[in-house]
Amino acid sequence: MDTLNEGVHFPRGADAAAVGWKALAVNLSDLAAMGAEPAWCTLSLSLPEADPAWIDAFLDGFTALAEEHGVALVGGDTTRGPLAVSIAAHGFVPPGAALRRDGARPGDEVWASGTLGDAAGALRLLQRGEAAPEPLAVRLHRPRPRVGLGTGLRGIASACIDVSDGLLADLGHVCAASGVAAVLEAAALPASDALRNAFMGDVDTLHGLQLSGGDDYELCFTAPVAARDRVERAGRDAGVVLARIGMVAEGAGISVRGARTPAGTGYQHFVTGPAAS
Amino acid sequence: MDTLNEGVHFPRGADAAAVGWKALAVNLSDLAAMGAEPAWCTLSLSLPEADPAWIDAFLDGFTALAEEHGVALVGGDTTRGPLAVSIAAHGFVPPGAALRRDGARPGDEVWASGTLGDAAGALRLLQRGEAAPEPLAVRLHRPRPRVGLGTGLRGIASACIDVSDGLLADLGHVCAASGVAAVLEAAALPASDALRNAFMGDVDTLHGLQLSGGDDYELCFTAPVAARDRVERAGRDAGVVLARIGMVAEGAGISVRGARTPAGTGYQHFVTGPAAS
Repeated sequence: MDTLNEGVHFPRGADAAAVGWKALAVNLSDLAAMGAEPAWCTLSLSLPEADPAWIDAFLDGFTALAEEHGVALVGGDTTRGPLAVSIAAHGFVPPGAALRRDGARPGDEVWASGTLGDAAGALRLLQRGEAAPEPLAVRLHRPRPRVGLGTGLRGIASACIDVSDGLLADLGHVCAASGVAAVLEAAALPASDALRNAFMGDVDTLHGLQLSGGDDYELCFTAPVAARDRVERAGRDAGVVLARIGMVAEGAGISVRGARTPAGTGYQHFVTGPAAS
Repeated sequence: MDTLNEGVHFPRGADAAAVGWKALAVNLSDLAAMGAEPAWCTLSLSLPEADPAWIDAFLDGFTALAEEHGVALVGGDTTRGPLAVSIAAHGFVPPGAALRRDGARPGDEVWASGTLGDAAGALRLLQRGEAAPEPLAVRLHRPRPRVGLGTGLRGIASACIDVSDGLLADLGHVCAASGVAAVLEAAALPASDALRNAFMGDVDTLHGLQLSGGDDYELCFTAPVAARDRVERAGRDAGVVLARIGMVAEGAGISVRGARTPAGTGYQHFVTGPAAS
């Protein structure tokens, strides 16, 4: 269950269709991170006033993603209030097969799906008053939950989470729940060509976006070295490129080799160890 | 799934424990109206800023009601935004046994549980700057969902709804869904002693509160005349007083014998027929 509030999770005047898409996407991403197959959802919409055009556009975006994943809208509520969208999404996973946060073990490898930093890169450009290239903007406005990958990683990944608050923050949850540390390689963090081009020559900003930028909705997971072939097959089956980005170690916290500690991340759960320069 | 927004569904500065109780109660009331047994819920809380004392009090109220009904809090979300509470509650009902809105048939009797107008009476007094007597205030702040009655009416009631927006508005949904009319008797509307005392001598206001006041979370249901004994037994088993308040008829709309048409109800779904004076 996730709530998106206007002015916090999306800007005032945001495209209603994008809000509808994203509100469902962030919930499906939570299911993906647990290896669950989405089934149905409920939707509660608070609106300052009746606005049929906004609702129509919102539902267009919502429905487009819901149909991709066969998610039924089974109930909900519309009410008056500051613009906000709450969705509770439900899915199924076989007993005992849910991916969890507490199974990472020292020696496991750390993986990330797709590319990291695109959504935060788009947001950074927009905040500077620059246009965001389409490949970045689409990551910010129409994120694709990694549902197929999540179900494919059942029985393979030792721990999994979706990257919503930023890689360090979210992998930090896994480390804390599992009682382990992680060592990442900055050079191994997957970056899109669009992100590299947009921040060319500014490797610290690039790494900062990849490590601390949120809203990518990729999966970050851990798996034993011996499972590497099965991990790669799960990625191919889901049509998602996977990158090995580091290792699980004993201890606590996350260190990143080859990157300066990103400044100003400000996440409550931000945990980092000594960074190599 | 229902959302409560500050300034709309509860006033600014409202007692946090009462908000926690009521946010769950309105959801359990929806389950009660379907004859469902509550099982679990998810909770999404938007807060302008971290406020541990508010959250503690909120959870006290929430948990008190959740424990009464064995409802597990299985997930959710806390995020920044205007103060709002969204809850999605889930329950079980045997296949085909859910109480619905579309089964009322001409000749059925219309029933209401408990007493009507108490919550609206409390609100009216508070809005006038007067103190609300405790029996009325508790109905407004700590409504009790009629879960036991709802499950007891499976297989007996032909249609059922909970009174959240007001009797006329909610029974209007039943009539519209069932393609029928209803004729109510004002004298049969169940009123608490506290409500009668508070509005003594002002029978039009009393009837207005009972017909159009919301937030009572009683059940209004229909059942065949032949089921009268079973209805009354279900009420006794649930420990809830039931009143026969009218009849289902052919046609559309609701008429109330013995009451003036309440003015200023303003509900979108407000449907009424010619009222006898």
